[in-house]
Amino acid sequence: MIENSAGENIVIKVSIVGASAYTGCELIDILLRHPEVEIVHLGGRREGRPEISGIFPSLRGRCDMRLGGPGPDDAPEKPDVAFFTLPHGISQQYVPEYLKAGVRCIDFSSDYRFADIGVYREHYGEHGDPQNVARAVYGIPELFRNRIKGADLVANPGCYPTSVLLGLAPLLGTGTIGAGNIVVDAKSGVSGRGNKPSPGSLYCECNENITAYSIGAHRHAPEMEQGIRMLGGEGAGVLFVPHLVPMDRGILSTIYVGLTEDADPAGIQSTMADYYAGEPFIRVLPAGRQPATKNVMRTNYCDIAVEPVGGGRAVITSAIDNLGRGAASQAVQNMNAMLGLDEALGLR
Amino acid sequence: MIENSAGENIVIKVSIVGASAYTGCELIDILLRHPEVEIVHLGGRREGRPEISGIFPSLRGRCDMRLGGPGPDDAPEKPDVAFFTLPHGISQQYVPEYLKAGVRCIDFSSDYRFADIGVYREHYGEHGDPQNVARAVYGIPELFRNRIKGADLVANPGCYPTSVLLGLAPLLGTGTIGAGNIVVDAKSGVSGRGNKPSPGSLYCECNENITAYSIGAHRHAPEMEQGIRMLGGEGAGVLFVPHLVPMDRGILSTIYVGLTEDADPAGIQSTMADYYAGEPFIRVLPAGRQPATKNVMRTNYCDIAVEPVGGGRAVITSAIDNLGRGAASQAVQNMNAMLGLDEALGLR
Amino acid sequence: MIENSAGENIVIKVSIVGASAYTGCELIDILLRHPEVEIVHLGGRREGRPEISGIFPSLRGRCDMRLGGPGPDDAPEKPDVAFFTLPHGISQQYVPEYLKAGVRCIDFSSDYRFADIGVYREHYGEHGDPQNVARAVYGIPELFRNRIKGADLVANPGCYPTSVLLGLAPLLGTGTIGAGNIVVDAKSGVSGRGNKPSPGSLYCECNENITAYSIGAHRHAPEMEQGIRMLGGEGAGVLFVPHLVPMDRGILSTIYVGLTEDADPAGIQSTMADYYAGEPFIRVLPAGRQPATKNVMRTNYCDIAVEPVGGGRAVITSAIDNLGRGAASQAVQNMNAMLGLDEALGLR
Amino acid sequence: MIENSAGENIVIKVSIVGASAYTGCELIDILLRHPEVEIVHLGGRREGRPEISGIFPSLRGRCDMRLGGPGPDDAPEKPDVAFFTLPHGISQQYVPEYLKAGVRCIDFSSDYRFADIGVYREHYGEHGDPQNVARAVYGIPELFRNRIKGADLVANPGCYPTSVLLGLAPLLGTGTIGAGNIVVDAKSGVSGRGNKPSPGSLYCECNENITAYSIGAHRHAPEMEQGIRMLGGEGAGVLFVPHLVPMDRGILSTIYVGLTEDADPAGIQSTMADYYAGEPFIRVLPAGRQPATKNVMRTNYCDIAVEPVGGGRAVITSAIDNLGRGAASQAVQNMNAMLGLDEALGLR
Repeated sequence: MIENSAGENIVIKVSIVGASAYTGCELIDILLRHPEVEIVHLGGRREGRPEISGIFPSLRGRCDMRLGGPGPDDAPEKPDVAFFTLPHGISQQYVPEYLKAGVRCIDFSSDYRFADIGVYREHYGEHGDPQNVARAVYGIPELFRNRIKGADLVANPGCYPTSVLLGLAPLLGTGTIGAGNIVVDAKSGVSGRGNKPSPGSLYCECNENITAYSIGAHRHAPEMEQGIRMLGGEGAGVLFVPHLVPMDRGILSTIYVGLTEDADPAGIQSTMADYYAGEPFIRVLPAGRQPATKNVMRTNYCDIAVEPVGGGRAVITSAIDNLGRGAASQAVQNMNAMLGLDEALGLR
Repeated sequence: MIENSAGENIVIKVSIVGASAYTGCELIDILLRHPEVEIVHLGGRREGRPEISGIFPSLRGRCDMRLGGPGPDDAPEKPDVAFFTLPHGISQQYVPEYLKAGVRCIDFSSDYRFADIGVYREHYGEHGDPQNVARAVYGIPELFRNRIKGADLVANPGCYPTSVLLGLAPLLGTGTIGAGNIVVDAKSGVSGRGNKPSPGSLYCECNENITAYSIGAHRHAPEMEQGIRMLGGEGAGVLFVPHLVPMDRGILSTIYVGLTEDADPAGIQSTMADYYAGEPFIRVLPAGRQPATKNVMRTNYCDIAVEPVGGGRAVITSAIDNLGRGAASQAVQNMNAMLGLDEALGLR
Repeated sequence: MIENSAGENIVIKVSIVGASAYTGCELIDILLRHPEVEIVHLGGRREGRPEISGIFPSLRGRCDMRLGGPGPDDAPEKPDVAFFTLPHGISQQYVPEYLKAGVRCIDFSSDYRFADIGVYREHYGEHGDPQNVARAVYGIPELFRNRIKGADLVANPGCYPTSVLLGLAPLLGTGTIGAGNIVVDAKSGVSGRGNKPSPGSLYCECNENITAYSIGAHRHAPEMEQGIRMLGGEGAGVLFVPHLVPMDRGILSTIYVGLTEDADPAGIQSTMADYYAGEPFIRVLPAGRQPATKNVMRTNYCDIAVEPVGGGRAVITSAIDNLGRGAASQAVQNMNAMLGLDEALGLR
Repeated sequence: MIENSAGENIVIKVSIVGASAYTGCELIDILLRHPEVEIVHLGGRREGRPEISGIFPSLRGRCDMRLGGPGPDDAPEKPDVAFFTLPHGISQQYVPEYLKAGVRCIDFSSDYRFADIGVYREHYGEHGDPQNVARAVYGIPELFRNRIKGADLVANPGCYPTSVLLGLAPLLGTGTIGAGNIVVDAKSGVSGRGNKPSPGSLYCECNENITAYSIGAHRHAPEMEQGIRMLGGEGAGVLFVPHLVPMDRGILSTIYVGLTEDADPAGIQSTMADYYAGEPFIRVLPAGRQPATKNVMRTNYCDIAVEPVGGGRAVITSAIDNLGRGAASQAVQNMNAMLGLDEALGLR
């Protein structure tokens, strides 16, 4: 635990590996405002050790550190916690070293999200660090809080699965809906594509446009299905269709579910609200209100609504900021939970 | 028919009632490029008879006519065709007079879309012109061409139903999919809201935002269900969830359907392509390609793709320009069809 | 002063009058994160005392207070500081009462910005509270810090003048540039128009569009000229042309100035940088870098660059967030300065 | 001339070299609607001879030709006119061959824009085809119509210079303004950057952002100065500052000029209007109206306004579509003019 001899919290020393990604910038922005964190190391593989504020000018004067090497020995002092804002396949190259050095790890990639490594292999390919997979905890604090506390490796969930699992959990857990035949129609802002130049990320291709992609074949679907099973859903089956929307940030997931025979459509809104009562970052909206990505922008909130629509069906809508709750701010909430701190520290 | 004694096409004289709507501006823009049309009358209820190019400065120098009164007697000469770009409830106040005066009518509102006036009453309220409802033809030319030809009153379909019915028709008609339990998750640009100032249409409310609205309760759902029945679908049932997307124009409908037992998933793309072979305005995309609203912007195209996704299901995606194929250009295609002209005249 | 008997800072009780404006929402958002502030009263004139989080759903769960009446007696307890996020002409109706009640006032409107009330009358019309005008201090902390400290009425500057005066001050103050013939070509996001529905603020009018307005006739020009005179510029003359840009937030001012004969073009960047050395919220960019509104979004920063361009001229560019540094966060910086606190409190 | 033995217009055979650029797509879109044009060849250097509609899906079903090689021998039949939508330095490699083959050439790059090749060399580097430079005509039809008619090589102007020179011409030509100390503050949509992926063209970098670039150092400034001299302006001097605006298309140039001593400020609007009387593509707005890029989108229009602002100064604002009048549609107008056709053919 991060405390001094008097039992007081002390500063948490943090390393961010892969800091030149959009999620790295977002994480730096959040951690700079966290009262108990000091960033001691930004790791990456860019040549010439550029200043991070040259890559992200919004950070100028707030964080002008240089990118160092990616390994734990590249950190000027040993961090307490390392965040990996790296693509899948790359995180697994660095996480083992940090774990070995006694650093708690929070990984943004899919490398440690799948308890069954066979699922990972099927969807992502070979895995270079299978032995640490079992050690990893899937990090949605509201749902898996107990496992996160004390963990030394947290797999920060995908942005789409976060929005979907937070929307489904209360109704799955109470047997209000079934786990099969769930349709997820999700809409994401462009920052989800990252900051590597590619034709599909150009302004003139994305602006004034909406399109679906990876229909029924996106790798976040098996992650959702794993999450549904973790929440007690038998026979989990998700048909997932993501869309690209002309906005910087935000995910809205529209989730079509079937109610179980015993479920009372009139009660599902309050079932949802009760489930998250007291949670500081989940806002279950009153009947008739709909989540909007703008209302959660640059926050750790997940706004959720549910509408019974007749025919034994309901529609759940769930909005998050893909860079915030879908990545960086959820990672910070996970860090707080791992260390036994107030989960909301630095996130309000 | 609009021909002179020698049997040659002559100019079609056109009236646009409600010209100060976005759809009116779009219609003027299209008709100015139609080789056989002369706009003789812009009708409306704005005081002071403003120039239309003062309301829509893009029209300056191209159409500087003034808005006149809304009735057929307000036209300086008798039009051959009148378009009504008015809200529901208002069109029905003017259409009867125009019909009585022997003017062919194309109505953009929902007033004449429902063969069963009981459905109209349930969703829109009382109807002031029930006797002309039976005379009206529902105007999607590719699907209902024969009825449109020679009609004197065409109900121009809603923007969402146009995109959905064009996507469903080939598979419904061939028994590939069933008519029940269809889920339509649609995304529309903001121009669908019209140009009347309201909080929900402000730039700062719509930009960088996406939200669902009217979940399971939008009035375009019964219009879709009527269309499905017209296409032979028994037990039509649509769960429709529209969303507002930060872009001017465009609708993308993502349609979740169940295949019938006899259907061959591998063949649905070619079923779709065959159905629309030779149609100038429907582009069925090859497997692996997805429609994007940007590709149909300011055109009369509907781009469609279909993907089998396992479990006896398929996802149809359909993109149109809500102001074009979803309103003005489809109305012009309907006019061409009504008059026995080449449907594509003025629309390429 | 806001301190307890032990001389420690205590909570500052705050009233916001006009809270249903975009600037009100922004101010609430900032003050909720200020460690020494408690919002005790939201004043307005909306009927039915709606919850502020119903008007601005992003505030749900963070600030669910109801709008009360606009006067000091409507506050449940006496505030220490009142912010007025009201239009000009309206602030002057409420500020006198609050001053009389011993409440320090920070006004977002132009009502108290002009030391010479004749200038106000020329550009805005009659003034209902001329006696308090002399009491008001013009609030750009970096430039007028000494007068702000201890003031009981601060006129929070206009968004455009803030960006322009911060850009000009270092060069005016050092005699590097002259005060006459300054051209300001400024570009603003749409939130500057407020949240009252009007045709010019609709999404479909602003999106994919840029236009100039109020050429040479905008009321922020005399405010800039007053500021230039306050900074020692003789014969102040500004030609100001604002433009509306399709984005939510941000102002970029491009300022064309003439160097004085003695000025050394090569030295102006360092003159600028030296002037603001140590200021936490002004970032003078190195040569070759340009401010971008995105880099200052949702912050109190003003990013500034200056380029000598030959012919005895230079171009200054200055970027702020119009709702932040151009309104709410500058107001909080002013509050901190008035109360003798660290100006950056709650703003990092 | 392109006519048959009976003196009737016949089809103009067209080659487009560099068709995979945004300007190439725009040009194809326009030429497909030109009643006298047949595209016979799309040239480029992409491997595998891809279909142009695979690169630009909006062209599917309208133009599915494959990209061929870039030379005149790669065309299946000899074109009458070739358009070069290539970057500077590349056009000059192909134009000579086409000229030698007797093909009229219209070049979108800067390669043939400068009569004084020394200016080209100073700003762009060496030139591989100096001998054809003298043969080239600078193509703004309203200003240089006589030289364009019959030319066999037209240099299609830069997008920024087009907007600026059309704005300045009437006042320069009448001695209303002087040619020195002109300040041009221009704002462009992102398509001006082309479709090559680069960090500065990413959606998330451009959206919700505005920034200046190349202050006083953009290569379009000497092009503007040459144009001003061609229009009779002595001592031409332009300070040019371009900005990048979050929109697909459009340029707005705000031009600050000094009136000559004899000029009558009250008369400049009518001077402007008179100058362009009868021009189909220039709309001089009435006093009090401002051009907006949205009003000229996807057209060949240039909308212009002028406002006297006191102090012997005036502000000209000029709006075009950078891909239309700033590139492809102006090129088509040039083609029409070269061939002695109605300049407006295919452009209304």
